[in-house]
Amino acid sequence: MTREIFLAIVEWASVFVYALSGIVEARKRNLDLFGALVIGFVTAFGGGTLRDVLLGRHPLYWTQHPIYIATVVITAILALFFPFQADKRTRRLIIVLDALGLGLFSYLGTYHAITYSTHMLVAPIMGMITATFGGVIRDVFFSEIPQIFLLRTQLYAVCALLGAFVYVLLRMLETDNSIAMLMCVTSTFLMRMLAIKHNLRLPL
Amino acid sequence: MTREIFLAIVEWASVFVYALSGIVEARKRNLDLFGALVIGFVTAFGGGTLRDVLLGRHPLYWTQHPIYIATVVITAILALFFPFQADKRTRRLIIVLDALGLGLFSYLGTYHAITYSTHMLVAPIMGMITATFGGVIRDVFFSEIPQIFLLRTQLYAVCALLGAFVYVLLRMLETDNSIAMLMCVTSTFLMRMLAIKHNLRLPL
Amino acid sequence: MTREIFLAIVEWASVFVYALSGIVEARKRNLDLFGALVIGFVTAFGGGTLRDVLLGRHPLYWTQHPIYIATVVITAILALFFPFQADKRTRRLIIVLDALGLGLFSYLGTYHAITYSTHMLVAPIMGMITATFGGVIRDVFFSEIPQIFLLRTQLYAVCALLGAFVYVLLRMLETDNSIAMLMCVTSTFLMRMLAIKHNLRLPL
Repeated sequence: MTREIFLAIVEWASVFVYALSGIVEARKRNLDLFGALVIGFVTAFGGGTLRDVLLGRHPLYWTQHPIYIATVVITAILALFFPFQADKRTRRLIIVLDALGLGLFSYLGTYHAITYSTHMLVAPIMGMITATFGGVIRDVFFSEIPQIFLLRTQLYAVCALLGAFVYVLLRMLETDNSIAMLMCVTSTFLMRMLAIKHNLRLPL
Repeated sequence: MTREIFLAIVEWASVFVYALSGIVEARKRNLDLFGALVIGFVTAFGGGTLRDVLLGRHPLYWTQHPIYIATVVITAILALFFPFQADKRTRRLIIVLDALGLGLFSYLGTYHAITYSTHMLVAPIMGMITATFGGVIRDVFFSEIPQIFLLRTQLYAVCALLGAFVYVLLRMLETDNSIAMLMCVTSTFLMRMLAIKHNLRLPL
Repeated sequence: MTREIFLAIVEWASVFVYALSGIVEARKRNLDLFGALVIGFVTAFGGGTLRDVLLGRHPLYWTQHPIYIATVVITAILALFFPFQADKRTRRLIIVLDALGLGLFSYLGTYHAITYSTHMLVAPIMGMITATFGGVIRDVFFSEIPQIFLLRTQLYAVCALLGAFVYVLLRMLETDNSIAMLMCVTSTFLMRMLAIKHNLRLPL
């Protein structure tokens, strides 16, 4: 029970941070409120939506409850009325929540992929797509090369991918799902924080 | 019967105007005839296709009858041989047909979404996607930020969204489907015409 | 038996050439190894994936066997360690393999489309999408107008489309599937080689 509440809190905090990052980036460009809302929504739910479309998993989760849309709308309103002068502590909090979300979404994507008969060694790709392709679609709408593909980016998608492989390996060793999930989220989170701290990039 | 014929005429006129707008924009850039055809097709059918893919609604309508492809090909040939020196009256007609199409596609998308178990308050998003994401995909292919997301755009997607909400509210009040549809198309159309006339944009 | 082995060799050679072209283009831009891998994967499998998503054909072929991912990873490693100083003969081989792949993927897409109840006269579009939209998605990720839409491009998608029509016409005349396939691949291949040799483009 406690674990489920903890998971739900992490999930909503991640959705909030993903949507916020989309909306803030949209406001920096020439987008109006509607455009910013779409970008916020796409950044938060685009990855999971693409995963479900690739898996043929219908109906899409965000079409079943208005709460997903409501979260993005509320985030956009907050972003408007409290224009973001993030101090150092807030920025650090956002980085932590984003890294947690990266791990959680990577787990969720990998888990759903396996449930939908994806091969164990291919499933981490669905985890990575879930965790990072919302941002990819956002960048496509901005008419920019997706950030996570660029040399200047610290390890991001790679952490999600490696974390998902941790999960898959543990599952192949018949580890309990909760433990495998915990290890996936933790390892993704730690790799991402290390990558930021030491400014790690792929060497080539 | 008369109503069905009227609806069919509005639908084909809208498809024609959507495809035409895609083809004209494509010819302004460096696209060849094949590229213009693809853009015309995507502008006219991309929104409905994305909606069906998101809903898991197969087979796609345009894969069942060659008439959809034929319409775009004929539009492209017309656009080639009668290069468009639109006078004021023609331009006004195109604006009117486009605004009617906006309302009709918004209704169609919302209707199909509800049929495919989308929550009533989320369904208008599918209406908006149906009516406007053909143009969004077109702009992505042009490597430009989608027009409907930009501050300089008059209300467009917002009209489709509000019109779809009119439809959903009437349906929740158990109004007959034809009346709800008529109110959706009419309100979308009027909002769009007002937005153009008074050059209305989102304030932020 | 011999025919199946020949087909399998052509298919893997095409996947290799498609992935290679994506990876080489990615390295010319500012993408890191991860980005290049994604682009390689998208170029090779994006067209078939889009076709399956449009047809509602699940599970996707590349989610069932790790060999597809492995092919792209190996191609990327080869591209890294033997940086491509293609001499004239190698370049000619790549052009030949690419043109063979164009025909084969066009056949495969058309064949699957018909199996999934697409109208005979619409199915060639699915063939063309299968053969060319991997490159289209690659170009979208590069934030460029897709090459195959541009005036400066030699006939490419058009060859795939015409080859697919050859297949469909033969099938409508009740020709045996293997013969129709052979004619599709051969005619696509010959048209493409002619287009390159004589630098043919669409006149408008």
